[in-house]
Amino acid sequence: MPTQRRLANAIRALAMDAVEAANSGHPGMPMGMADAATALFTRHLKYDPADPKWPDRDRFVLSAGHGSMLIYALLHLTGYARPTIEDIRNFRQLGSPCAGHPENFELPGIECTTGPLGQGLAMAVGMAIAERHLNAVYGDDLVDHRTWVIAGDGCLMEGINHEAMGLAGHLKLGRLIVLWDDNRITIDGSTDLSRKEDVCARHEAMGWHTVECDGMDSAKVSKAIEEAIADERPSLIRCRTIIGYGAPNKQGTAATHGSPLGADEVAAARKELGWNLAPFEIPDDVAKAWKEAGSRGSSVRADWEKRLASHEKGKEFTARQAGVCDDGWLKPYLDKLIAEPAKVATRKASEMALEAINAALPSTIGGSADLTGSNNTKTKAMQPLDAGNYAGRYIYYGIREFGMAAAMNGMALHGGVLPYGGTFLVFSDYSRAAIRLGALQTAKVVHVMTHDSIGLGEDGPTHQPIEHLQSLRVIPGLHVYRPADTVETAECWAAALANDGPSLLALSRQNLPQVRTKAEGENLSAKGAYRLKETEGPRKVILIATGSEVEIALGVAKELEGKGIGADVVSMPCTEAFDAQEAAYREDILPDVSNREILRVSIEAGTTTGWERYTGLHGLRCGIDRFGASAPAPDLYDHFGLTVPKVTERVLDHMKQRGIQ
Amino acid sequence: MPTQRRLANAIRALAMDAVEAANSGHPGMPMGMADAATALFTRHLKYDPADPKWPDRDRFVLSAGHGSMLIYALLHLTGYARPTIEDIRNFRQLGSPCAGHPENFELPGIECTTGPLGQGLAMAVGMAIAERHLNAVYGDDLVDHRTWVIAGDGCLMEGINHEAMGLAGHLKLGRLIVLWDDNRITIDGSTDLSRKEDVCARHEAMGWHTVECDGMDSAKVSKAIEEAIADERPSLIRCRTIIGYGAPNKQGTAATHGSPLGADEVAAARKELGWNLAPFEIPDDVAKAWKEAGSRGSSVRADWEKRLASHEKGKEFTARQAGVCDDGWLKPYLDKLIAEPAKVATRKASEMALEAINAALPSTIGGSADLTGSNNTKTKAMQPLDAGNYAGRYIYYGIREFGMAAAMNGMALHGGVLPYGGTFLVFSDYSRAAIRLGALQTAKVVHVMTHDSIGLGEDGPTHQPIEHLQSLRVIPGLHVYRPADTVETAECWAAALANDGPSLLALSRQNLPQVRTKAEGENLSAKGAYRLKETEGPRKVILIATGSEVEIALGVAKELEGKGIGADVVSMPCTEAFDAQEAAYREDILPDVSNREILRVSIEAGTTTGWERYTGLHGLRCGIDRFGASAPAPDLYDHFGLTVPKVTERVLDHMKQRGIQ
Repeated sequence: MPTQRRLANAIRALAMDAVEAANSGHPGMPMGMADAATALFTRHLKYDPADPKWPDRDRFVLSAGHGSMLIYALLHLTGYARPTIEDIRNFRQLGSPCAGHPENFELPGIECTTGPLGQGLAMAVGMAIAERHLNAVYGDDLVDHRTWVIAGDGCLMEGINHEAMGLAGHLKLGRLIVLWDDNRITIDGSTDLSRKEDVCARHEAMGWHTVECDGMDSAKVSKAIEEAIADERPSLIRCRTIIGYGAPNKQGTAATHGSPLGADEVAAARKELGWNLAPFEIPDDVAKAWKEAGSRGSSVRADWEKRLASHEKGKEFTARQAGVCDDGWLKPYLDKLIAEPAKVATRKASEMALEAINAALPSTIGGSADLTGSNNTKTKAMQPLDAGNYAGRYIYYGIREFGMAAAMNGMALHGGVLPYGGTFLVFSDYSRAAIRLGALQTAKVVHVMTHDSIGLGEDGPTHQPIEHLQSLRVIPGLHVYRPADTVETAECWAAALANDGPSLLALSRQNLPQVRTKAEGENLSAKGAYRLKETEGPRKVILIATGSEVEIALGVAKELEGKGIGADVVSMPCTEAFDAQEAAYREDILPDVSNREILRVSIEAGTTTGWERYTGLHGLRCGIDRFGASAPAPDLYDHFGLTVPKVTERVLDHMKQRGIQ
Repeated sequence: MPTQRRLANAIRALAMDAVEAANSGHPGMPMGMADAATALFTRHLKYDPADPKWPDRDRFVLSAGHGSMLIYALLHLTGYARPTIEDIRNFRQLGSPCAGHPENFELPGIECTTGPLGQGLAMAVGMAIAERHLNAVYGDDLVDHRTWVIAGDGCLMEGINHEAMGLAGHLKLGRLIVLWDDNRITIDGSTDLSRKEDVCARHEAMGWHTVECDGMDSAKVSKAIEEAIADERPSLIRCRTIIGYGAPNKQGTAATHGSPLGADEVAAARKELGWNLAPFEIPDDVAKAWKEAGSRGSSVRADWEKRLASHEKGKEFTARQAGVCDDGWLKPYLDKLIAEPAKVATRKASEMALEAINAALPSTIGGSADLTGSNNTKTKAMQPLDAGNYAGRYIYYGIREFGMAAAMNGMALHGGVLPYGGTFLVFSDYSRAAIRLGALQTAKVVHVMTHDSIGLGEDGPTHQPIEHLQSLRVIPGLHVYRPADTVETAECWAAALANDGPSLLALSRQNLPQVRTKAEGENLSAKGAYRLKETEGPRKVILIATGSEVEIALGVAKELEGKGIGADVVSMPCTEAFDAQEAAYREDILPDVSNREILRVSIEAGTTTGWERYTGLHGLRCGIDRFGASAPAPDLYDHFGLTVPKVTERVLDHMKQRGIQ
């Protein structure tokens, strides 16, 4: 039986060999944390390489994602189908699942995409929340696992750390255990260059249990892990390590962090580690011992499968894991709206829709970053999810936008829950990095972002989104919805719940009339844009608007029609969805791109950049290309020229200029 | 002589009256912190309302910016020219300088714009850094002041708090004193809903001194302040307060946070506070006592002016405060580049330019969020700025992108220093909220963002910007530069240093040929776009490219010319600057918007959305509208179709489609 150190050296060898072959990558972290990872994967972690998606598996998050070779080595050695040794040989090459940073869409066994520092840890907090919640709902027989994290100094220094750890401490997530790779090195050199902090004391102040150990002695790591398991608080295990351990001339320095060691140093490391093998070669005894470690979970999983099969809620549990979202709530709710139109803010319309959604879908978990009453995210029946009641479905995230968004990603990736969370749209700037990482991972979450324009009024330019809608629309894979009324809000919620990846709802603070007053056979908002009002006369103008500006567009159309100018109104709640429609549909909605016969006009209380895509260069774009101001909303709309008379005047001027009659 | 409490009640009355008149705003914080603010402004803060910009004044930052009426009341009462009582009566109305949140561009005396939580505190850290640095350079006679902050729970819960406080603790910024409004209330209710933390212990772990006091007893606040001044560490003063203090039925509850108290409660509060006066009325004795407090600094400033006048470095100091940036370094540096062209990455070109800039401009303070060797931000002569050497000009910010960007804003707003700082472009998502707040405040900082596309290669999609360039370009007031070579990089640096507000440089990881090989009489990059290569034959194609894709555009032009198709190449390092040029210039560079005679083509390794503005709808946009991948850079450029042969083929196809011959 090979020693634990020898098992760990297999990780070290694969890490330095793969980085060397790619001539790019990060050997230092895998080499420093190889022993700790070996302890975790051979003794403590609950997993089964034969079924990487087994719902009751422990979750392992490599928050220090640059050390990706650590997880690739572990998955390979413990017997996952992929990565093969060939995949590892192709580390960081086009088409290899062994990407520079671990990508959850490349390899089962990778729970989430990491690399942007701090977010892995924050996603792990979300996974740990999901676990406790599902445990509270389904009991120990079906849900009883832990979430493990390997984090580096970057993950501890980033601001999101404070939000994530604070939330975890508050929620007493005792099943969350973080192994901190305390190697005292960052890219710039010693951690002393930028940090003088008692990291453990800081975490204790936030309700964490902490324990220290020699991170390169796997027995001592195991002892620390046992202590962590025994404590009811979340645990931070300070693993004292040497970065690049095994590379005799470079270990302990930043030189091992993000560059190949070089042929000479790799040779020296082989000698130092007693690893007299060709690159990528694993001795049989080591391979066998790792496979055995990987098979530990097989019978555990088999027992769990049996419990699932006989569990009264087994089928429901499985359906929730699959993430099926029945939209049966939509039609009766829309029928009611059509019967009793309501003039409310779309944030209120969202709450009304959520009453129906939350009743229909038990998997939703709502929350807000301390703006519950403003975001209208908490429906009547929702109880807080907290340390005293994990069965609750509403999370008071506190003033932690970024931590909330990342935790939601983690919850979604855990599976079995469907998170949504609220803040002001302008603060998407705080959570943007997590919104993006959710899109990359196709994490099904809904960002509920209210106060979506100058329409929020007096709070002024710091709180008024200008560029936010456009800057969010360009995130690949994110659907941004900006509904115009109660009906569109419900349709957009339905569309969001039908998407695979993340969605973002931009909602008004101010009341808006219900512009959709008759029942339709389909979800018009899901098409991205549709003709809300069609002119009867010859079409001369197409007014394209979103959200709160649809009301203005309808007013302008009325004015124009009064002057004998035929005007359509196109409501465009989701540009991404519209872009994905077939060309014939798009051309029907927006004919004559030349603006020679018909003038296209966009109206949105935000930046006009990007609207050229729908108006053409010679169309007219009504919007705001500077910062907002502090005043009541109607004064601001007037100040920025977004009223029916002012837009009408601009349209008439522009028609004249373009010679459209 | 009125009591301190009576002085504080003047703040309380103005706050509740103004919010009532506006029917919008946040009375709770000003009412809770009125006594603490009175202690600070009547006894400790060094300021002179007659000269709000006096360089050696203390800086006061209301990080909990929603409590804006606190600072408006203080400025008015202590004798600043504005706000007048009329301004305060117009709180939150269009045109009033008393905006919903404090705006530094509205009122002298407001050091920075606050409202987005946590950032005021982080800007204060920057101000405190600037103070210690300038003190080290100019001595106690010219620079000897403190930075004060009032922060709420939001500022302490936001992630940026961890970055800012960690940096301040590391740098031992003993002249930074934070008064924490510990009222145990957030918008959602009790802080217990979302936080269980020993806030003081956390700060002590990060090198802070902490002290507690009754925040509504101004004598006790003064005592705590004296203790804070005496300690050499930065200090957090825990002021135990009651939110909305004085409103007998609502105080201590979230109801006072962000809504008017209502007429009845205001009347009850007047009674409770013994304030039997009409709204906005200040009794003479109170007004007089406040004015006297405000005049404390007058003689201190006079003494300082005398010292400045006789100081050997007085003139230099004043010039630095004015922020003048001589660009004398540019021409000799460009001459050298023309004489000896270099093929380097633009991040390297930036370092080369910085060698000249940092030698010429002593006010620059560089830094990086732990990517010094990758961002190339540290020039040879730079020494670290740290607790042992505040005279240093390079800051190891640690893995704190957001904290860095906000601190840079604070440094710039303090005056006398010109900060620049580096990270990867993709991590602009982490610091975006501070980039925006800098733009709103016209804070002169330079964000050095390297690894600006898939050209960074193997690190993969988490590290590869796609939507970032476009999403940053839409931030009002921010100039985004993406230079193509050494010459453009120097020109862009010069343009950035000439801007009033913030600039962002997007720089390549990969080497790029020098495309500009002859001397020009002007800074072409400062025009935003210019014709880099003009066709000799009839113009059929205009290739518009930025940064690393200019090389590709030149290659495509050569291919097209080889086929007898006349092609211009337009380099567009800054779309904002180009949009600001006169119409004649823009039409000369980009003629024929219809794409009937001439095809316009954009080439940028990022999202194509927004490029319609320059190509027109019938132009061709070559870019990437999905996430990147992990592979060597040349493989990725090929994979995403951004090579000379592939772009050439697309151009030829598109010309055919459009019938251009």
